[in-house]
Amino acid sequence: MSGNSFGLLYCVTSFGESHGPAYGGVVDGCPPGLELTNQDLQKELDRRKPGSSRHVTQRRESDTVEILSGVFEGRTTGTAIGFLVRNEDQRSSDYSAIAQKFRPGHADYTYFQKYGVRDARGGGRASARETLVRVAAGAIAKKWLRERYGVRVRGYLSQLGPHPIAFKTWDAVDANPFFAADPQVVQKLEKFMDALRDSGDSCGARVNVIAQGVPPGWGEPVYGRLDADIAAAMMSINAVKGVEIGAGFGAITQKGSEHGDEMTPQGFVSNNNGGVLGGISTGQDITVSIALKPTSSIRLPRRTIDTKGQPATIATTGRHDPCVGIRATPIAEAMLACVLMDQALRHRAQCADVATPLKLDNPSKIN
Amino acid sequence: MSGNSFGLLYCVTSFGESHGPAYGGVVDGCPPGLELTNQDLQKELDRRKPGSSRHVTQRRESDTVEILSGVFEGRTTGTAIGFLVRNEDQRSSDYSAIAQKFRPGHADYTYFQKYGVRDARGGGRASARETLVRVAAGAIAKKWLRERYGVRVRGYLSQLGPHPIAFKTWDAVDANPFFAADPQVVQKLEKFMDALRDSGDSCGARVNVIAQGVPPGWGEPVYGRLDADIAAAMMSINAVKGVEIGAGFGAITQKGSEHGDEMTPQGFVSNNNGGVLGGISTGQDITVSIALKPTSSIRLPRRTIDTKGQPATIATTGRHDPCVGIRATPIAEAMLACVLMDQALRHRAQCADVATPLKLDNPSKIN
Amino acid sequence: MSGNSFGLLYCVTSFGESHGPAYGGVVDGCPPGLELTNQDLQKELDRRKPGSSRHVTQRRESDTVEILSGVFEGRTTGTAIGFLVRNEDQRSSDYSAIAQKFRPGHADYTYFQKYGVRDARGGGRASARETLVRVAAGAIAKKWLRERYGVRVRGYLSQLGPHPIAFKTWDAVDANPFFAADPQVVQKLEKFMDALRDSGDSCGARVNVIAQGVPPGWGEPVYGRLDADIAAAMMSINAVKGVEIGAGFGAITQKGSEHGDEMTPQGFVSNNNGGVLGGISTGQDITVSIALKPTSSIRLPRRTIDTKGQPATIATTGRHDPCVGIRATPIAEAMLACVLMDQALRHRAQCADVATPLKLDNPSKIN
Amino acid sequence: MSGNSFGLLYCVTSFGESHGPAYGGVVDGCPPGLELTNQDLQKELDRRKPGSSRHVTQRRESDTVEILSGVFEGRTTGTAIGFLVRNEDQRSSDYSAIAQKFRPGHADYTYFQKYGVRDARGGGRASARETLVRVAAGAIAKKWLRERYGVRVRGYLSQLGPHPIAFKTWDAVDANPFFAADPQVVQKLEKFMDALRDSGDSCGARVNVIAQGVPPGWGEPVYGRLDADIAAAMMSINAVKGVEIGAGFGAITQKGSEHGDEMTPQGFVSNNNGGVLGGISTGQDITVSIALKPTSSIRLPRRTIDTKGQPATIATTGRHDPCVGIRATPIAEAMLACVLMDQALRHRAQCADVATPLKLDNPSKIN
Repeated sequence: MSGNSFGLLYCVTSFGESHGPAYGGVVDGCPPGLELTNQDLQKELDRRKPGSSRHVTQRRESDTVEILSGVFEGRTTGTAIGFLVRNEDQRSSDYSAIAQKFRPGHADYTYFQKYGVRDARGGGRASARETLVRVAAGAIAKKWLRERYGVRVRGYLSQLGPHPIAFKTWDAVDANPFFAADPQVVQKLEKFMDALRDSGDSCGARVNVIAQGVPPGWGEPVYGRLDADIAAAMMSINAVKGVEIGAGFGAITQKGSEHGDEMTPQGFVSNNNGGVLGGISTGQDITVSIALKPTSSIRLPRRTIDTKGQPATIATTGRHDPCVGIRATPIAEAMLACVLMDQALRHRAQCADVATPLKLDNPSKIN
Repeated sequence: MSGNSFGLLYCVTSFGESHGPAYGGVVDGCPPGLELTNQDLQKELDRRKPGSSRHVTQRRESDTVEILSGVFEGRTTGTAIGFLVRNEDQRSSDYSAIAQKFRPGHADYTYFQKYGVRDARGGGRASARETLVRVAAGAIAKKWLRERYGVRVRGYLSQLGPHPIAFKTWDAVDANPFFAADPQVVQKLEKFMDALRDSGDSCGARVNVIAQGVPPGWGEPVYGRLDADIAAAMMSINAVKGVEIGAGFGAITQKGSEHGDEMTPQGFVSNNNGGVLGGISTGQDITVSIALKPTSSIRLPRRTIDTKGQPATIATTGRHDPCVGIRATPIAEAMLACVLMDQALRHRAQCADVATPLKLDNPSKIN
Repeated sequence: MSGNSFGLLYCVTSFGESHGPAYGGVVDGCPPGLELTNQDLQKELDRRKPGSSRHVTQRRESDTVEILSGVFEGRTTGTAIGFLVRNEDQRSSDYSAIAQKFRPGHADYTYFQKYGVRDARGGGRASARETLVRVAAGAIAKKWLRERYGVRVRGYLSQLGPHPIAFKTWDAVDANPFFAADPQVVQKLEKFMDALRDSGDSCGARVNVIAQGVPPGWGEPVYGRLDADIAAAMMSINAVKGVEIGAGFGAITQKGSEHGDEMTPQGFVSNNNGGVLGGISTGQDITVSIALKPTSSIRLPRRTIDTKGQPATIATTGRHDPCVGIRATPIAEAMLACVLMDQALRHRAQCADVATPLKLDNPSKIN
Repeated sequence: MSGNSFGLLYCVTSFGESHGPAYGGVVDGCPPGLELTNQDLQKELDRRKPGSSRHVTQRRESDTVEILSGVFEGRTTGTAIGFLVRNEDQRSSDYSAIAQKFRPGHADYTYFQKYGVRDARGGGRASARETLVRVAAGAIAKKWLRERYGVRVRGYLSQLGPHPIAFKTWDAVDANPFFAADPQVVQKLEKFMDALRDSGDSCGARVNVIAQGVPPGWGEPVYGRLDADIAAAMMSINAVKGVEIGAGFGAITQKGSEHGDEMTPQGFVSNNNGGVLGGISTGQDITVSIALKPTSSIRLPRRTIDTKGQPATIATTGRHDPCVGIRATPIAEAMLACVLMDQALRHRAQCADVATPLKLDNPSKIN
């Protein structure tokens, strides 16, 4: 399997560039019989799409998706689901000023060094626009997980630059442009973003994603662990530099007597492990947190080199997200959903005949 | 590819349990012509093996490795390299007291729920003893990377419980039982560990791993990214709960003008990205940091349930590492080496005909 | 990797159904820098497309292909190549008479039993129209193999029903609607086909495919053999029931003294092995032969059952190829080309540093 | 996945060389709870082992297998099953005379050209001794298929050189050294083999393998087809040059009205398709037939070249099977069983929630 596919049984393949004619994907391995329409994908794509507030890129894309195969009379058939999103607002001219210069912190340098090809138009394949393919694939996974196993995958922005954002209520998340779970904090974030945008700079962010209702047993030791797959899926998102499960880096300073989640017949007393032990789900909430670096395309002038290796100064004036983390919530949700669906299928392949021996009273519940 | 294998072209397959007759592995895809002896594997296994100081498990294992195939007249042939390590010191009796109880924070609960099988002997397949397979496979990768590309992969313990450990010198790392890169700190760590052991508790740790000399261009966008593979490989190590590349979680509070590594004709001015941009190596040092949770097997009594779901109290008195992070350095090095070798092979498969366009003056150097 | 993808490094993913909106594919792993246009794919698709003579299905499809990604300024970039072919002539009404009945020898029964979904329109995913994806992917592989290694992949129809067709000249192959390599035989084949069509029946066929110029060393023992990959690729083509390499089934009655190809410093004296020994290419011509069964959709009435399991009689009057083997030549060429390209990339990944020890005088040559 | 592994979910990895210390394998993905002992593997290995009659190689190997992991208290645990067979009778001296010469029709030439390494001892990795790994893995698959789904996989020698061997009774197969299903023919075969051996030559063979009891629905269109996997698995067996399913090459001269298997509510009327339509099992017997070439190591002198490319004459006097096809029956059974088990697991991963819509009266039965 080459680099543009992921997943063993729920397998997603992606293609497309920021300034080419279209993005698209193929989802292979989806069970037959799932009700599915363009609208199921569209509603998730709309959460991610550009131009939805002044705090994200102003590129105008409707991101209209068309399912091309794998669905018949409103239900999946079990064959490959192909889908397509045409690009509509490619302004390659935006890039003429920087066509021969590398943006510090951007992948344009490494693509050039790897492939020997210079495609400056919007980052080409490295553009975060590729994540729409993930969101579409994740929409199918979310739906199947919810209908088949009662699993719900949700996320929220938990930090914007220096501002931590508390979790208050899921209801708030889709009611503000930041995916913040605290309605009180929105005004502060807007002020921060307005000032940041004016400054010509960008900032990092943290996103938390949670899966509720996952039964115990998903995940394949020892390398195909659920948490290993989650780590890869999250780190493959543009701009992600760190991944934590459960207590994450906080576990370093914990004692074993504090970290190890005690159990009672009612269930686990705590969830430091984030719902995964030995790479296998425990039945608790799967809790994941990721760090996103600040956008590399900024207006402030910076030292760089050009494609001839000569010194240059660069300032990027195209349409860019001042914080890529803001739109990352639906993307991270999608990746977690795809991983869970893949592992659900893998688990029932091998262990379909195993009756889970123990039923605890308080498995992870959807609140 | 099922869960006990990893790597696309440099593919490692592992088997064995803590109290079974042996561990072993198969390394597939190694290029022919590499000089290789049992001793090349043994010297890395000896860095990881138990009983080497009072701060780790006192289980007595020589961890003697035998290469069974793939090497002829001292050189790899290009065919699968099989190797075997017999277990020597299995005291299953240690486990009789806890045979029917789950250890809080241990994988014995999830294995039972997944497979419906109870194997209490030393954690069975979930035991960290499995990491010897990784270390053996990593020894081959390290050697090939060094000889073929001048790449060097090294690590050190950067935090032990509450004690951060500065990087002072590589020379110190193998001269103390902690893999600390600061000789001054060893006495403090020993005192800390002695007290911890006496208390019957355990602690977490942080390990940093660095690869130097990696050329630009390794890594496959967009899902087969170098950093995604690293994240999976690290998270698949027992007890790891977090992975960072470069600035990691620190990137959240950085501005873009601070994070984006400027470039000059001499090279990058900083390395916030940890040597990876867009999933492809930049030519700088690859810098990785991981969080390890405290050992779950501790002497302090804890609430748990038994295999019937009834409440119980457990205290683990077998031979265990009070900090699994201490022996994690060679394991993390091995995983990084395996990932790099796999991506090196993948890169030259696709891009063998690309001449890297730019040569900067200060690529990552081995100091 | 799920069922709609094949290839490890040159990886092809396919989607689409006969009566859905479109077919498409993603080719991942193609090296950068290859000159590539829609026309490169189109010219191979035109060889396979329906309606090109009275001897094949009269469905009217232009099979116009659009490359959507992976190509910039006329050259491949190294990223995923997505392409799309819209269906134009779906007459679902053709199928109303047989919507609830299974065609003997057709996959509609097994798809129904596997997925529990009944899509009678033109065979849905099981339609041989899917092979256009293979032909498009194969066009890229053919071009790269030719330009990079001087490898040429060609095929011809070697038997039509009871009529064996001798190989006379490659020049004839594209000059008649049968891909026959003997211009003298065409009139006889036309008469045979006209009578067959009138009779309402169908017939089988044999196609030979040959790759010339393949260097020694491609193929991965012991399961990833070149010939094993070829066998899978050929058997995955609709209607194929047998695959031979070299002497094939003729090897059963050969003696070892007859079969084993002797060697001289000039090269091999014969080619019973079909260019593959131990799963690795020898440097001779790769020779493959496949058997295609007669089309299952025929006008003659046959006993069958319906979707309720009740007895029924069926006669298929839609537009079908009376011999699917006639259009199979470009498909078989495409599959062989994809396998060879995949193995070429795999070989240079592992063995890039091996200098082929022996150069024989007469490797397989393009005549 | 590299070349020494096969299977997506029931994944077999193999290592070992003819004159190295041992062969071994790892079976990953086996469901937990299957009763399994060394003896289950041994009884199949004993059917394949050398020295069992004067008609096969006289190398003396007990082929004693040891399971090293994945089994606890007599049942599989769901983790990787490692196993080992030590070589006992390596006479490398047998090869000194031919150490620098290639055997016509042998893989020693292609291995040398691929890897640049010369290992003349018994063919090294190319030796058919590797097939013991397949037989061991197949023993597990056979057992699981039989116990879980009532599937039975069996084979027999259907042609020895010029002598076709009719199928009379399964009872005969293990009662003669040829795996002939006709007890009357054994004496004729013995005479033929005695004369062949005296002549210093070798011969080809045909083996038929049949799986009974396979339910409809196994197999993944369009590339991951059941028959494509079978074709690859069979062609990967040493010396195999052709694979047929069902009518195979006979389908070329069949009419559609003859080939297409009619159906009644009781089931299929015939089985030209060999139990597979569109890559998915029909519920009928899976019928496979393979062609094996004559052994390349013969006593008769032949023209060849040496490792310097100089002309030479070679006559092979080591211990070799005069017909590798004789011992191929258990190997082909094993490969078919592994493929079926893999596809069974893949099917239930995706389609666990599909109730097979139709139950026919006479599915494939074990007679």
